[in-house]
Amino acid sequence: MIFVGFGFLMTFLQRYGYSSVGFNFLLAAFGIQWALLMQGWFHSYKEGYIRLGVENLINADFCVGSVCVAFGAVLGKVSPVQLLIMTLFQVTLFSVNEFILLSLLEVKDAGGSMTIHTFGAYFGLTVTWILYRPSLHQSKERQSSVYHSDLFAMIGTLFLWMYWPSFNSAVSKHGDAQHRAAINTYCSLAACVLTSVALSSALHKKGKLDMVHIQNATLAGGVAVGTAAEMMLMPYGSLIVGFICGIVSTLGFVYLTPFLESQLRIQDTCGIHNLHGLPGIIGAIVGAVTASCASAKVYGIKGLANFFGFDGFKTSWDSSMQGKFQAAGLFVSLAIALVGGIIVGVILKLPFWGQPADENCFEDSVYWEMPEELKSTVLHPEDSTLKPAEP
Amino acid sequence: MIFVGFGFLMTFLQRYGYSSVGFNFLLAAFGIQWALLMQGWFHSYKEGYIRLGVENLINADFCVGSVCVAFGAVLGKVSPVQLLIMTLFQVTLFSVNEFILLSLLEVKDAGGSMTIHTFGAYFGLTVTWILYRPSLHQSKERQSSVYHSDLFAMIGTLFLWMYWPSFNSAVSKHGDAQHRAAINTYCSLAACVLTSVALSSALHKKGKLDMVHIQNATLAGGVAVGTAAEMMLMPYGSLIVGFICGIVSTLGFVYLTPFLESQLRIQDTCGIHNLHGLPGIIGAIVGAVTASCASAKVYGIKGLANFFGFDGFKTSWDSSMQGKFQAAGLFVSLAIALVGGIIVGVILKLPFWGQPADENCFEDSVYWEMPEELKSTVLHPEDSTLKPAEP
Amino acid sequence: MIFVGFGFLMTFLQRYGYSSVGFNFLLAAFGIQWALLMQGWFHSYKEGYIRLGVENLINADFCVGSVCVAFGAVLGKVSPVQLLIMTLFQVTLFSVNEFILLSLLEVKDAGGSMTIHTFGAYFGLTVTWILYRPSLHQSKERQSSVYHSDLFAMIGTLFLWMYWPSFNSAVSKHGDAQHRAAINTYCSLAACVLTSVALSSALHKKGKLDMVHIQNATLAGGVAVGTAAEMMLMPYGSLIVGFICGIVSTLGFVYLTPFLESQLRIQDTCGIHNLHGLPGIIGAIVGAVTASCASAKVYGIKGLANFFGFDGFKTSWDSSMQGKFQAAGLFVSLAIALVGGIIVGVILKLPFWGQPADENCFEDSVYWEMPEELKSTVLHPEDSTLKPAEP
Repeated sequence: MIFVGFGFLMTFLQRYGYSSVGFNFLLAAFGIQWALLMQGWFHSYKEGYIRLGVENLINADFCVGSVCVAFGAVLGKVSPVQLLIMTLFQVTLFSVNEFILLSLLEVKDAGGSMTIHTFGAYFGLTVTWILYRPSLHQSKERQSSVYHSDLFAMIGTLFLWMYWPSFNSAVSKHGDAQHRAAINTYCSLAACVLTSVALSSALHKKGKLDMVHIQNATLAGGVAVGTAAEMMLMPYGSLIVGFICGIVSTLGFVYLTPFLESQLRIQDTCGIHNLHGLPGIIGAIVGAVTASCASAKVYGIKGLANFFGFDGFKTSWDSSMQGKFQAAGLFVSLAIALVGGIIVGVILKLPFWGQPADENCFEDSVYWEMPEELKSTVLHPEDSTLKPAEP
Repeated sequence: MIFVGFGFLMTFLQRYGYSSVGFNFLLAAFGIQWALLMQGWFHSYKEGYIRLGVENLINADFCVGSVCVAFGAVLGKVSPVQLLIMTLFQVTLFSVNEFILLSLLEVKDAGGSMTIHTFGAYFGLTVTWILYRPSLHQSKERQSSVYHSDLFAMIGTLFLWMYWPSFNSAVSKHGDAQHRAAINTYCSLAACVLTSVALSSALHKKGKLDMVHIQNATLAGGVAVGTAAEMMLMPYGSLIVGFICGIVSTLGFVYLTPFLESQLRIQDTCGIHNLHGLPGIIGAIVGAVTASCASAKVYGIKGLANFFGFDGFKTSWDSSMQGKFQAAGLFVSLAIALVGGIIVGVILKLPFWGQPADENCFEDSVYWEMPEELKSTVLHPEDSTLKPAEP
Repeated sequence: MIFVGFGFLMTFLQRYGYSSVGFNFLLAAFGIQWALLMQGWFHSYKEGYIRLGVENLINADFCVGSVCVAFGAVLGKVSPVQLLIMTLFQVTLFSVNEFILLSLLEVKDAGGSMTIHTFGAYFGLTVTWILYRPSLHQSKERQSSVYHSDLFAMIGTLFLWMYWPSFNSAVSKHGDAQHRAAINTYCSLAACVLTSVALSSALHKKGKLDMVHIQNATLAGGVAVGTAAEMMLMPYGSLIVGFICGIVSTLGFVYLTPFLESQLRIQDTCGIHNLHGLPGIIGAIVGAVTASCASAKVYGIKGLANFFGFDGFKTSWDSSMQGKFQAAGLFVSLAIALVGGIIVGVILKLPFWGQPADENCFEDSVYWEMPEELKSTVLHPEDSTLKPAEP
């Protein structure tokens, strides 16, 4: 299941055409191989061999998901070479972060609210902050969508939406925890759609809906139950989380993204801060709170010990201790994302990676052989709006 | 599996762009939550809690499928608020109808020929009959498709086609019945494609094919084996059902839909009468006949009793009794659909739901913030045909 | 899983619009029914009945996959009637070939490198060689892609890429062999993407990427591990195979396809020789070598005998014997493809199948009722490039 889900995290971004899909494909293929190696070294290295199973492939997919999130922030402003370098570093940092969280701090993060979304989003945002382009407005007219490209993006949204429950439950323990994860995610997503649509309409002065909100904010609910999905969040808890996330994410698109761009010089192409950053933090907090509140009454004594793995050196833990470690996991993720993002951003700022000029951002023809006919007049509408302005 | 199938029942309708996809998404998210509650009250209410499992999610999906069918009839002519109200009532009625059929009459309807398709289609048709718009021809030019929109719709068709076997077998008993359901559906769908294509070509005066038939009539075979799929229909029986449905459905598109619109004042935007209404009735009849003919020779004595659940108060039943109850189920579904449709239609006719004017039907820009550039000239072709006619 | 994979082998080809999708749908539906019958006669005929299970459906899907491959070579140059005749014959030949390979020669071919890809590709190439159209250049301008059609094709590519591991492992023995098949395919595909992208850029004089290579060459890695996927190829072996295939396939698109067309009069519309033909042969050779090298040390003595089925009349075999039979399987496939292709090609050359004129190739409106408005000016761009050249 998870293979398709991530396949369409890629097409979801295809508003900018060939490059979005093609580069995403490229970095995913590269990232998966590198992630297999990295995660193999950290988790399944044994007697000189890396033992490889389907679970490793799923984990590598998750890792690449984090890269795709960060790709959303720098989309259209970097060259393929820069992307590969970013992937190389990010996969490494992801593996380190995942190792610290899951193996050292022993936090629960089945759906990756912390490891994938929060880490990926703030890493990407830091990189794009370092790579700030003051004259990006020269490419501004190519940054908007057109009628058909929004429909393509909508295919991606629907796909992610449908696969999110499988995604959040993929690495859960089989049985009850897996079912819980799927059902909680489902409820949260459904609630999130309603608040996103309602708020999108309420914030528009004529009550119209904005396609960007529908494409993105509707998914925030899935991000936000990532950590807590396999816990006893209960359906009503998921509905509340989805409800809140729909509001936060839509508000983010309307007010926060323009603010980030104008005041903090963070140019967030796809608005990943609203889809992955904020809901990821919410998800981590929800996870910490849910873990803290876990009681033997709801899980059963054995169930609790079994679920959180209170054995070995964790024998003396209780749920509130687990909750504190969950919170620590969030801060570790954020710290690694920020520090790593600054380092990688500085490396990518070096002038010999073939990055496009400010006026060529969001432009496929810099990197792609384009179909000949009509390219610049009708069928490549981003161009057509540019060309008349040139002469 | 079923999650994706329904995800694309939504994209299937995207011939009219943002609204089709977006509103379908909205009503699905809303409908699923309401259906979980409704079906929870009817089927799994226990000690003050609704017990929720993956099966409930699938059943809620089925329920929403019925709403999506009805949405096909009123597509482009109602506002989002009207849609939500329709969803609210239809989900309630669906749950009542399902409760009567499955729990009181104890009919078999694994693929939902009766509960989903027949009910959904005739409910939708009744609503659109009540909401008849005499001046709809003013929007007529925007009701046709364009080259790329037909390709988008074809993605939906292929997806539904591929997932229909999983869909019809999702709630069957595991093991033999589930395999039978998948294989019967598969055979029926394959036969249906051939007759649809052949007849589409035969009915055109120059022998050309019509994309609308390929998109829709090819799926009718899946609807029509919905009830009988898990029974001993045998592959050749499925092929015959598919064969007949391909013919009926294509003939319906060519002759019946125009007749309904001009004579009976039923404006059926997507032709759901041909894809869901007629095949649903055929499916119900096929189910009744197959159940009547079920004999201990084919199923084995134990198998028969086990399959139809001849125990408890049904101990004295035989197959022909089951067949009669299947037929009764069809009439109950039709009755509830018609009466419910009239009531809901009258409610929706109230003038304060923000319905679009006749000349604004099938127009995205009434409800959506549109991409700025080129909107009305090249990339929003529905507009472009309208604008030249205006000045 | 396999149902969707093949559903999108169809949409993958939709660069030429309605006909690609529609005819592919038609021939798939027809082919599946015919394949169920043919394979039923060969493999599961018993007491006058054909026993049908889900496995038969998967095998029929595989068979249709082979037809879809051949369809890629003749795409745009044949009529629907010709396609149905080709499907009829090819399914028959496929079943004969499969029976010889799997039942008589007892070769292993889980992912169908030989039976599906090599056979399908060389069959299709032979047919298109017989059907050579000297004046095809008259339709040349309609043979290229446009911006949006490439994005549609990319959806197909991503889908096939994601499902290929499931596809190659679908008929493997459950357990270890199935996991091995999925993981090997995955590694090969990932490696193939990298070399395809790198070479595509390296071969372009300005370093730009070509969408055709990304769409096609990236999949070659999956074809090439088809035979060996369930064997002990080891991940590094898969990476090497994928690496080589990415190079071979991209080179094929750049140099071989034009050469075939100009010198050998083989007009290969979709470049199937590079995606299926060459990688299929590589896959068969890799399979033969891997089988030859299989040793009791790696598989275990029992595992080896169990995996290759060294019992019954094969008791005296060893791995090198198996390797020789694998190689023999390749030559049998090629021979049947070439001879069968010539016969079918000659039959299709008969002048009464309604084939399109040279100047109407790659043109939907010959066979399809087109949307009225704007058809020939904006939204049917293949036309729009033609029309201005006419007067």
